[in-house]
Amino acid sequence: MSPFAPRRSASVAALGEARLIAAIGRWLGGTVPPSPAGIGDDCAVLPVARGRRLITVDPVVYGRHFDAKVPPAAVGAKLLKRNLSDIAAMGGKPEAAVVSLLLDRKVSRAWLEAFHRGLAACARQYRVRIVGGDVAEAPGVLAATLTLVGSAGKRVLTRRGARAGDAIYVTGALGGSLDSGHHHAFAPRLAEGAWLAGRDEVRAMMDVSDGLLKDLGALIPSRARAELAIDALPLRFGASKEAALSEGEDYELLFALGGRADAGAFERAWRRRFPQTLLSRIGRFEAAGRGSAGTLSWGPYFGYDLIRTRDLHGYEHLR
Amino acid sequence: MSPFAPRRSASVAALGEARLIAAIGRWLGGTVPPSPAGIGDDCAVLPVARGRRLITVDPVVYGRHFDAKVPPAAVGAKLLKRNLSDIAAMGGKPEAAVVSLLLDRKVSRAWLEAFHRGLAACARQYRVRIVGGDVAEAPGVLAATLTLVGSAGKRVLTRRGARAGDAIYVTGALGGSLDSGHHHAFAPRLAEGAWLAGRDEVRAMMDVSDGLLKDLGALIPSRARAELAIDALPLRFGASKEAALSEGEDYELLFALGGRADAGAFERAWRRRFPQTLLSRIGRFEAAGRGSAGTLSWGPYFGYDLIRTRDLHGYEHLR
Repeated sequence: MSPFAPRRSASVAALGEARLIAAIGRWLGGTVPPSPAGIGDDCAVLPVARGRRLITVDPVVYGRHFDAKVPPAAVGAKLLKRNLSDIAAMGGKPEAAVVSLLLDRKVSRAWLEAFHRGLAACARQYRVRIVGGDVAEAPGVLAATLTLVGSAGKRVLTRRGARAGDAIYVTGALGGSLDSGHHHAFAPRLAEGAWLAGRDEVRAMMDVSDGLLKDLGALIPSRARAELAIDALPLRFGASKEAALSEGEDYELLFALGGRADAGAFERAWRRRFPQTLLSRIGRFEAAGRGSAGTLSWGPYFGYDLIRTRDLHGYEHLR
Repeated sequence: MSPFAPRRSASVAALGEARLIAAIGRWLGGTVPPSPAGIGDDCAVLPVARGRRLITVDPVVYGRHFDAKVPPAAVGAKLLKRNLSDIAAMGGKPEAAVVSLLLDRKVSRAWLEAFHRGLAACARQYRVRIVGGDVAEAPGVLAATLTLVGSAGKRVLTRRGARAGDAIYVTGALGGSLDSGHHHAFAPRLAEGAWLAGRDEVRAMMDVSDGLLKDLGALIPSRARAELAIDALPLRFGASKEAALSEGEDYELLFALGGRADAGAFERAWRRRFPQTLLSRIGRFEAAGRGSAGTLSWGPYFGYDLIRTRDLHGYEHLR
C-alpha cells in the first residue's frame, strides 16, 4: 500500500492538523490515557515510578526502515517494537511512549490510519500507553520517531561487564531479516531480557540490530578479543553465514555468560523457561595483547582456523 | 550557513555513523552523563525521581522551523527551547532529553557540529542532560526530534480548569516572531511557569506556539466563550494586531486567573518577582449559551464592539 495519496482529498493535507490529531486519538483508542496523563496538553504526565526509569528513541523512515511493500499496520508495530527491543536489552519493562510524526502533505489518510491502528494493537499487546506526540509537516518525508520510557528491573544489565573467558550467546536466529519479513514481524525479547537480567551469571547484554559483527564490538571487554564459532551461528531459514554476521535488523539478544558459570545448568534453566526460543552459544571472549585487543575473530568451530574480521562489517548508516 | 555540504568530504557521509556518533558525544561534551545514564547503551537510565514526571516531544525540520539563515547553534538551542516551553507551561522543571536525527547524506559536518554545540550550550544553561539519541539516514531530510523529560512541581497546571469569569493573561509580547528572530532567540518561561503553577488563583495554563487565537481555543471552559481586548494585546515591536493574534512561535505563557482572585495583588506580586517580564491582561472568559460556547470574540477594548473570530486562525500545520 502506497503511503502517498493519489489525490489531495485522500491526503492528510485535506484533513488539516486539528482534525488529524483528533483522528490519531481515535485510531490509537484505548492506548491513550485521558489528559493530562495522555494527549491534549503541553506535556503528558507519567505515572509515579518507584525505581529507575529507562528511556530510548528510534524512528522508522520511509525508504529506509520500510517501503510500500510493508503493510502500514506492520510499520506502526515495527516502530514500537524497535524500541521495545532496546528496553528488553536492558532487562526493563515498557511503560509509555510519545510519537513525533514528520509528514509530507501527500501522505495518505488511509495509510496513516492503518499505521496508527497497527501501533495501537502492538501497544495493547505490550501494555504501552501512548501519552503524547507531535505532528509536523516536512516536504518529501514520511517518518515517525518514538520515544519509549520503561521501568528498570532490580538490575540494569548494560553492554559493559563482560570479561575474558565469558561465553557469548545469542537468542533466536540471525540473517535474512529483510527478505523474510522478520524486520517487522519479530517479537521483541522482553520476557527473555527481564529473565536474563535477573541471572547474576549474565554479565552484559545488548540487542542485535545493526548486524552481529558490528554490534558485538560494543560487548568486547578491554584487553580482550571476541572469538566466534561460525558453525554455531543460528541461521534464519535461507540466510547465509555472511548474512547472519552482518545484515542487521535481527532484534535478538546478545549476551555474555560469566566464564565460571555452569553453562549446562544455565542452558537447562533457559529451556525450561523459554522452550520456544532458540539459544545458541556462538563464541567467547579471550584475553588478548595490545595488538589484537578489541578485535573479532571467527573460525568454523571453537578454537580452529581463526580469521580476523577487520574487513567484515555490520550495517553502518550514512555509508 | 547552508546545512548541506558543497562536497562529499565535508558531509556526514564522509564521516560515517560510528565516527559521527563519537563526534556528537564530543560536541555535546559535559551535557552527556557517563553510560548507562547517558549515550552508549541500548537505553539510557534516568535518575530516580520522587514525584510525577512530565514528557514532551517537538522537532525542528529544515524548511519548516529553520532555514539556512538561522545560525546552526540557534537551531540546536531552538530544538531544546521549544520543548522547554512545554515544560514551563505545566509548571515543571526540565531534566533529561533524547535526540533523534534524520539526516540526508549531504548534511554538512560543520553545520551539525555547530548545531550540537548550540544544543549543548542551551542544555547547560537550563541544566538538561542529553542522555541518548539515534541517527538515521533519510534522503532529502534534515530534522531533529527532541523528547524532554522533566519533574512536575507539587501541582501540574493543565489547560483545563478555567471557568467563566476568569481573566486571561499572557506573558511577554506577541507577533512578528519570524521576522524578529524571536522564534529562535526566545527564552522559555520556566521560572515564570513554575511560579504561576504555585499560585492557586491560576487555574489553567499553556504556551502560545501556534498563534494566540488558535491556542486560546484549548483554554476556553465548556459553556463559555473568550473575549479578547484587542488594544490590550502586547505587540512585539513592529508587529500588527493580526500578527499578534495568529502568527505563532511566540513561546509565551497564556493563563487564566480565577475570577474571584485579587487581580491587583496578583499583578503586584508578579512585578516584584519578574520585574523584567511583561504581563498583560488581554481578556476574560464569559458564560455563553449553546450557540456561542467555545467561540472567541474580540473588540477594541473590554466589552465593546465584540466581533466573532471564526474566520481568524492561528498557524495550522498541513494546511
